Amino acid sequence: MTTTNEVAKPQVLQVEEPLALISGAELPRYDLVYETYGELNADASNAILICHALSGDHHVAGVDENGKPGWWDGYIGPGKPVDTNRFFVVCSNNLGGCRGSSGPNTVNPVSGRIYGPDFPIVTCKDWVNSQNKLREHLGIDTWAALIGGSMGGMQVLQWAIDFPDKLRHALVIAAAPKLSAQNIAFNEVARQAIMSDPDFHKGRFIERDTTPKQGLALARMLGHLTYLSDDMMGSKFGRELREGKLQYNYGVEFQVESYLRYQGEKFATRQNFDANTYLLMTKALDYFDPAADYEHDLSKALAAATAKFLVVSFTSDWRFSPERSHEIVKALLDNDTDVSYAEVESQHGHDAFLLPNEHYEGVFRSYMQRVWKDIEALGGAA
Amino acid sequence: MTTTNEVAKPQVLQVEEPLALISGAELPRYDLVYETYGELNADASNAILICHALSGDHHVAGVDENGKPGWWDGYIGPGKPVDTNRFFVVCSNNLGGCRGSSGPNTVNPVSGRIYGPDFPIVTCKDWVNSQNKLREHLGIDTWAALIGGSMGGMQVLQWAIDFPDKLRHALVIAAAPKLSAQNIAFNEVARQAIMSDPDFHKGRFIERDTTPKQGLALARMLGHLTYLSDDMMGSKFGRELREGKLQYNYGVEFQVESYLRYQGEKFATRQNFDANTYLLMTKALDYFDPAADYEHDLSKALAAATAKFLVVSFTSDWRFSPERSHEIVKALLDNDTDVSYAEVESQHGHDAFLLPNEHYEGVFRSYMQRVWKDIEALGGAA
Repeated sequence: MTTTNEVAKPQVLQVEEPLALISGAELPRYDLVYETYGELNADASNAILICHALSGDHHVAGVDENGKPGWWDGYIGPGKPVDTNRFFVVCSNNLGGCRGSSGPNTVNPVSGRIYGPDFPIVTCKDWVNSQNKLREHLGIDTWAALIGGSMGGMQVLQWAIDFPDKLRHALVIAAAPKLSAQNIAFNEVARQAIMSDPDFHKGRFIERDTTPKQGLALARMLGHLTYLSDDMMGSKFGRELREGKLQYNYGVEFQVESYLRYQGEKFATRQNFDANTYLLMTKALDYFDPAADYEHDLSKALAAATAKFLVVSFTSDWRFSPERSHEIVKALLDNDTDVSYAEVESQHGHDAFLLPNEHYEGVFRSYMQRVWKDIEALGGAA
Repeated sequence: MTTTNEVAKPQVLQVEEPLALISGAELPRYDLVYETYGELNADASNAILICHALSGDHHVAGVDENGKPGWWDGYIGPGKPVDTNRFFVVCSNNLGGCRGSSGPNTVNPVSGRIYGPDFPIVTCKDWVNSQNKLREHLGIDTWAALIGGSMGGMQVLQWAIDFPDKLRHALVIAAAPKLSAQNIAFNEVARQAIMSDPDFHKGRFIERDTTPKQGLALARMLGHLTYLSDDMMGSKFGRELREGKLQYNYGVEFQVESYLRYQGEKFATRQNFDANTYLLMTKALDYFDPAADYEHDLSKALAAATAKFLVVSFTSDWRFSPERSHEIVKALLDNDTDVSYAEVESQHGHDAFLLPNEHYEGVFRSYMQRVWKDIEALGGAA
């Protein structure tokens, strides 16, 4: 039994057949890069898919070859709530991403040119369709559970609607059944920041060997602002001055400015996140609205779902507030679906889903015990 | 008695003496452009100063020569809550503004060059000091009332602290005693958007005959987002599509995107707001913290205030929420100051202070009746 983090080795699924996208466009072929943790059991009943959020990727747990821990490492690993001594955990970089899966920073096989802005806008349904290919590839008939936070939670919802018999449990964390006008507006300002950067070059920045750093940094600063709660920023930074006194200029004065500039700069420069991916992911978020196909009735959209659900929200999350999770829970209850719900007290805003929290961890861990018991009942825990 | 809007004629006070600023810098001389409405009575006891917010100016009421109504025309004018048949209303463009008062878009008398980035950062205290010159110039010993919303409300607080015997009533609407870390963070993203626009030219854009339109539009879009409530955006725009269906591109798709882009473009282009003024005003907001001079105790800061107060907040205002007004009210109550407070139910977020609302109008109107009764008691209503 492993008790230390394993070194995760990215693998690539090469799908050499076209993927018809919801937009009407088609990808002639595509790669999905993914990591796995733990061992798939003999009857492939212990597999769990993790879906990532806007800036996430396939490296969700363990450490990469540089020793960098996965983005949800606090909750996934040996002895952790998603215990990799028990579960076979899979996470792939979404289509349109920029960490190895086919996306704007990869080569268009038709033109031989970097996709850039030509990479078609994909939707949550397209992600689920491509992840379903990965499921088949891995020889998994049914996921023991699907787990996702924020945009990841939206993919879990979409899976439960589109492939109801391919998952037994759905964990939807810090998500919403669709974006509000305010959510869309924040995304739109971020997109405008990127697209108005002169280094954006209509999305062809890679070919010009540049990147719209300023626009991307602005987008990230703004995103970051919406992930944190007012209270948390207040208690973390308050009105503290970096130099102890006002400078009366436009340099960094307040600690919160320093923090935000650092976050923006890191994302745009050190992490070198692809600006076209950022645009595309925000669009997929804006478009997500599974009820739209069901007369705008979320209860109807979820009527065919057979998975059992855990829904979690965080009190200070104003990006996707508890009320947005209530909508999901209500729609599930309308269908007498088996749903557990936890509203977790936290000061950390939307980011809380990635951070330590006793209540959250307890709920997460005990729900995963239940997922494990279901696997045992299937005889797969031997 | 006038019952229709008067045509407002801007006037200019030229102050030919230096103004020592809080930053330590000095303005050798300055202009203040202002408008007045109504008639000053014989004993100058019916004068009211209106303080403007971030993007406001001196044209607060009546119509200008192009027929454009003032920005608070709904509440100021003949028969309106601030009744110009009774009161002599004054409003000046703040120092550092861009509508005629000395600011970044005016000429530095020392160098003969457009100030641009050389215009010193002014603070709320500096504004109050310059407005006090206007008071003297107009022959007004004591304002019957000072009225301001948002950043305007902060100036009213500052007046009550710095010149307690120069006002009888203070109306502080949709304001806060200081900005939160989140407020500062939003301002910082807006500033970064402007300063990273290549047309900003380190603030020397006027000399280069250009203007950082994109940055200014982004700043305005972001500001606008924070002025509106999530609920209001939801009920006004929802997820409505401009073309009725998704386009799967980065053009305008949702109505809320169209609205925001319009607001940004209008501010940057048609209104041609000065980018340096925007930077300066957001800094003055960040710096505002009158309690800082009083051991960070707002009650102590307001101890010397002798004015009577009306404080108003709006339920859906998340920029300066009702809790921020509670801080002001509590500090006033600590001093047994005469304070009325109204928490007005509104869906319109921070913008509510400019919009029609029966409760708000009733509170505003009846408080102004009280201001008028005080003038009558002084014998000035004859």
